[in-house]
Amino acid sequence: MALRIIATGGTFDKHYDEIAGKLTFAASHLPQAIARARITAAYALEELPLLDSLDMQDIDRRRVLASCTHAVEEAIVIIHGTDTMQETAAVLGAANLAKAIVVTGAMIPYEVANSDALFNLGYACGVAQLLPPGVYVAMNGKVFDWDKVQKDRVAGIFEPIPH
Amino acid sequence: MALRIIATGGTFDKHYDEIAGKLTFAASHLPQAIARARITAAYALEELPLLDSLDMQDIDRRRVLASCTHAVEEAIVIIHGTDTMQETAAVLGAANLAKAIVVTGAMIPYEVANSDALFNLGYACGVAQLLPPGVYVAMNGKVFDWDKVQKDRVAGIFEPIPH
Amino acid sequence: MALRIIATGGTFDKHYDEIAGKLTFAASHLPQAIARARITAAYALEELPLLDSLDMQDIDRRRVLASCTHAVEEAIVIIHGTDTMQETAAVLGAANLAKAIVVTGAMIPYEVANSDALFNLGYACGVAQLLPPGVYVAMNGKVFDWDKVQKDRVAGIFEPIPH
Amino acid sequence: MALRIIATGGTFDKHYDEIAGKLTFAASHLPQAIARARITAAYALEELPLLDSLDMQDIDRRRVLASCTHAVEEAIVIIHGTDTMQETAAVLGAANLAKAIVVTGAMIPYEVANSDALFNLGYACGVAQLLPPGVYVAMNGKVFDWDKVQKDRVAGIFEPIPH
Repeated sequence: MALRIIATGGTFDKHYDEIAGKLTFAASHLPQAIARARITAAYALEELPLLDSLDMQDIDRRRVLASCTHAVEEAIVIIHGTDTMQETAAVLGAANLAKAIVVTGAMIPYEVANSDALFNLGYACGVAQLLPPGVYVAMNGKVFDWDKVQKDRVAGIFEPIPH
Repeated sequence: MALRIIATGGTFDKHYDEIAGKLTFAASHLPQAIARARITAAYALEELPLLDSLDMQDIDRRRVLASCTHAVEEAIVIIHGTDTMQETAAVLGAANLAKAIVVTGAMIPYEVANSDALFNLGYACGVAQLLPPGVYVAMNGKVFDWDKVQKDRVAGIFEPIPH
Repeated sequence: MALRIIATGGTFDKHYDEIAGKLTFAASHLPQAIARARITAAYALEELPLLDSLDMQDIDRRRVLASCTHAVEEAIVIIHGTDTMQETAAVLGAANLAKAIVVTGAMIPYEVANSDALFNLGYACGVAQLLPPGVYVAMNGKVFDWDKVQKDRVAGIFEPIPH
Repeated sequence: MALRIIATGGTFDKHYDEIAGKLTFAASHLPQAIARARITAAYALEELPLLDSLDMQDIDRRRVLASCTHAVEEAIVIIHGTDTMQETAAVLGAANLAKAIVVTGAMIPYEVANSDALFNLGYACGVAQLLPPGVYVAMNGKVFDWDKVQKDRVAGIFEPIPH
């Protein structure tokens, strides 16, 4: 099934700027990661402005929603910062699009040792192709409904919202 | 859903032996790859003898089948060499187990630059949790029924068997 | 010739803290880098408090000087942040120790893609064993006398002080 | 001091060919390694045919000697396989060129995890700029005269020839 992969920034795509001496954004690592994955499935890669998810505003989330709305693909992977994944997922979930939309990201940037980015990208691409329409968060080898997940910021993992 | 990950060797787990000066097998990279993926889903990792898949014999494939048969998990990922994935998948397919069994591997070893191993592991873990019972091959961001896939050894990709 | 390698922090040893979501210091990467270099020359590794070099105070520089003074080795490599290398080198240079002391560091952290850290460590270990007593800065494949070098912060390179 | 870096192959430059499924040679990694080192010293990079050093013949060694003879630089680093470093160094040593020639290599390919390649390149570049004219082997953080070194193939390290 054809995939759309939408880059929005977040830890996954953080880049070390050696002149400034800090992590920031430059070009997305997604083209390199996708080439590395040797994907032969049909896919489109769409780069939105790359943002730290703590800096995301309503207008940024509506931009992500617009991309999902206009996408011709029925399986969508969104690369997103982990701190506000649920907020973006909530905006997407309220729209009730007839597409499987999977939000994922990384705890360690793609270009840093021991990164989970490539695993998460693979996991999200796999489940996006199989899930029924809906909005999901995929992290830690699990897929969650968008309204039943939270990030435990102390442990650095995603977990179901306790009842 | 609980996962069983079964290591059988293949390119994914090849290791550069600096004394012999060649690629061989030592300890599996799966424990490191799984830790890196920060998986919180329940899983069991089972290491079978690590083999180049061109060296796999019937007895080796029956060992993989025995592991799948005895597994309590209903979602199974098998890390396997790419050259004889279909042969092992055929042995597993003929057994009609009531489990989703996904065979994957890598074109570049986990420890070599530009490896697809971590992506494929993520992809396979994702689809194994969602597919109905059956035996599948997952490579190149696609999932194939075990009896409808072949490796194009010149291009180095997996593709449907032409009708 | 026996080497002393002194870790003081800087970009070389920055570590991505996945809970805090930023670069900070944890254990030094020097033990791993040295093991990887397969050094059989006699060496001692000394870890001082790991600091961003912009945070280094006089007391920190005197601590580095004390380590150099007390070292039994006559070839010393100091891993240091690039922003205030010259300041520390000046403190060491004024002491006129009868040892070859080479200050180096990295523009990209050891654990980040495309890092120069391992090259610089190798370069510094090599020249420290051969230079006459004195204090030097080694970066960009060049060795500079401590009082004749400056960092071009726009270009991110070290260069001779213009006359 | 201006450097000439001569690539001749060896483990340093081995590349994993994903179609053939084995280590071989493609383009040299030296351009990438040098860029990563952010070398601002003047240098020339010369790529000779990339060979496994066990496959090197007299004609190959004479080609290396010709490159050293014609080089305008007085500091030369040769990237070479570890198994016959001494043989090539002996051919160069017999020529008594008025240049510092340092032969180095790697136990693990540049593109494989835990490689010593970048450290050795840095070390060799450093010592080549400082050593008096002569032919040397640099490995394991040590520099050896060409006629006083041997490889311990069981331990995988270079050591002085016992008297």
